[in-house]
Amino acid sequence: MKKHNFSAGPCILPQEVFQEASQAILDYNNSGLSILEISHRSPAFVAVMEEARSLALELLGLKDKGYKALFLQGGASTQFLMVAYNLLEKKAAYLNTGTWSSKAIKEAKLFGEVVEVASSKDENFNYIPKSFTIPEDADYFHCTSNNTIFGTQIKKFPSTAKPLICDMSSDIFSRELDFSKFDLIYAGAQKNMGPAGTTLVVLKEEILGKVSREIPSMMDYQVHIGKDSMFNTPAVYAVYVSLLTLRWIKANGGIKAMEERNEQKADLIYNEIDRNPLFKGFARKEDRSPMNATFNLVDEGHKEIFDKMWKDAGVNGLNGHRSVGGYRASMYNAMPVESVQVVVDLMQELENKA
Amino acid sequence: MKKHNFSAGPCILPQEVFQEASQAILDYNNSGLSILEISHRSPAFVAVMEEARSLALELLGLKDKGYKALFLQGGASTQFLMVAYNLLEKKAAYLNTGTWSSKAIKEAKLFGEVVEVASSKDENFNYIPKSFTIPEDADYFHCTSNNTIFGTQIKKFPSTAKPLICDMSSDIFSRELDFSKFDLIYAGAQKNMGPAGTTLVVLKEEILGKVSREIPSMMDYQVHIGKDSMFNTPAVYAVYVSLLTLRWIKANGGIKAMEERNEQKADLIYNEIDRNPLFKGFARKEDRSPMNATFNLVDEGHKEIFDKMWKDAGVNGLNGHRSVGGYRASMYNAMPVESVQVVVDLMQELENKA
Repeated sequence: MKKHNFSAGPCILPQEVFQEASQAILDYNNSGLSILEISHRSPAFVAVMEEARSLALELLGLKDKGYKALFLQGGASTQFLMVAYNLLEKKAAYLNTGTWSSKAIKEAKLFGEVVEVASSKDENFNYIPKSFTIPEDADYFHCTSNNTIFGTQIKKFPSTAKPLICDMSSDIFSRELDFSKFDLIYAGAQKNMGPAGTTLVVLKEEILGKVSREIPSMMDYQVHIGKDSMFNTPAVYAVYVSLLTLRWIKANGGIKAMEERNEQKADLIYNEIDRNPLFKGFARKEDRSPMNATFNLVDEGHKEIFDKMWKDAGVNGLNGHRSVGGYRASMYNAMPVESVQVVVDLMQELENKA
Repeated sequence: MKKHNFSAGPCILPQEVFQEASQAILDYNNSGLSILEISHRSPAFVAVMEEARSLALELLGLKDKGYKALFLQGGASTQFLMVAYNLLEKKAAYLNTGTWSSKAIKEAKLFGEVVEVASSKDENFNYIPKSFTIPEDADYFHCTSNNTIFGTQIKKFPSTAKPLICDMSSDIFSRELDFSKFDLIYAGAQKNMGPAGTTLVVLKEEILGKVSREIPSMMDYQVHIGKDSMFNTPAVYAVYVSLLTLRWIKANGGIKAMEERNEQKADLIYNEIDRNPLFKGFARKEDRSPMNATFNLVDEGHKEIFDKMWKDAGVNGLNGHRSVGGYRASMYNAMPVESVQVVVDLMQELENKA
């Protein structure tokens, strides 16, 4: 039985993607070779990489606007480091909205002064701070668009003359934004874009070359740009499956259509969280993430029975992160509305039983 | 038609591995989930990671000998950097046997003094320098065991009291060595171990903690050891397919059996290169690699016809690297003797035609 997969990441991808991704392991495009055994310098793979880079920019509305797209290794955790290596000369401004922001701040501090312009740590990161000042002398401003663990999302990004850097790991390609307001966007693939093992970096080349330190090759965005994202052997299969997922997004209406469906799923579950007296939402309403709905039982005494109910129904990955407890329904692009309905039905069934 | 795949890497993997790797994309172990959509924190994947780490040590004969195995991202190119970040305080000794050694040296120079103890650059890296002195005050000695591009291999490693660091990307698990003589071994998976996207690092913990610099988390071996190679989301699928390949090595007699078959394949092609008057080997005989046989036509006038012959015969990836020209037959563990025989037959056919 196919599960209803609410994992926070790695997470559900489209079924069509799995089918094609599985076939390519046996024989890639009738080449007589597995996608796993072809050279990354072969025309077949170079075409995959180029289409993936181009399609990422196209979907974000950033084609021909001075942006480059890279597929790197090391996850967002490596980007915490690379951003600072490449851009932090003296001082950088960070908004702290949770675990991932905190980790980004920690790494940046090795390279210069970090000003935490605001933090929602006082309330266990259940909201997005909205009033803060970015120092005039900051080299850039960094924020995390969606906080997977706490289920919050930035709805409005600050206007700033400084380079705007954003970790969009958990909500890229899920909603329409004016992406041209950002100077550098990065995202680990393993939410809306593909499997674990590759990280998309989209950046304006003009922000580079302004720090005085020497940068090791693998940490240097300019090196990767100069080699069209093939400075060294890339994560071939992860890039390929990301391309399949990007094609699926395009074929299914692009980001606009993804956003509409994501809002429908979010409305469904948040309405039930607010209506059902047995549950309470974790994040403040105005900052709720459509990607990750975090909620707790009002009475923990219902935990055992509810956990058995959803596990019996073939629901997977609904446990909340240990920092929040309770439940987290991660509803990325590939999640069908029907799976969210299954959870909502179970919440109502629990209410009727209790 | 299945190709005879002589690609230098990413490269051929066992057919049984492709079958199982393909099935796991559709449904991993009857879980109702694809291997691509399971959480890296799930018991299913933690078991994969732990078995892969343990089996790597077992195959190398390093279990219970104070070594840790890690599966990291970023390829050997990131290891060039991490080795220096973690181990280079003042001075390090490097043996330069080709492109990859040169790149390792370049990155290390950002962190301290690098003494190139010897180099075979004078002969376009067609041999392994054998007499050199490792400075008394070196923090470590670094070498590259097998040079994919030039087709050379170190047969005898120097005895040194210094930590012995080796890039074994292109010959790990291919021959028996006393691996306990090494303090840190690293290898990009995409030759003998798996698909592109993960890198095995095997190291003695006792060599760490001796540099004074602060190390960013993702660059810090100690951080990865402390988190059992799960500090951040690993390259789930690349680690899984590496595990399948490691299991295949074990089931097929371990490294000893791999080495016997690799020698058989190497004898087959090198005997033909030496016998056939139309061809000449590139690397010096005593330094020849069983992994990558590099050879050239004596008369380039035969190139067009020979290239057509092997392409028509379903042979893939036989072109030499641009630094060497001619041909390169990469014959990793999974390469059947029969495929090497196909190339040898073609070389004889060319001789008969010419």
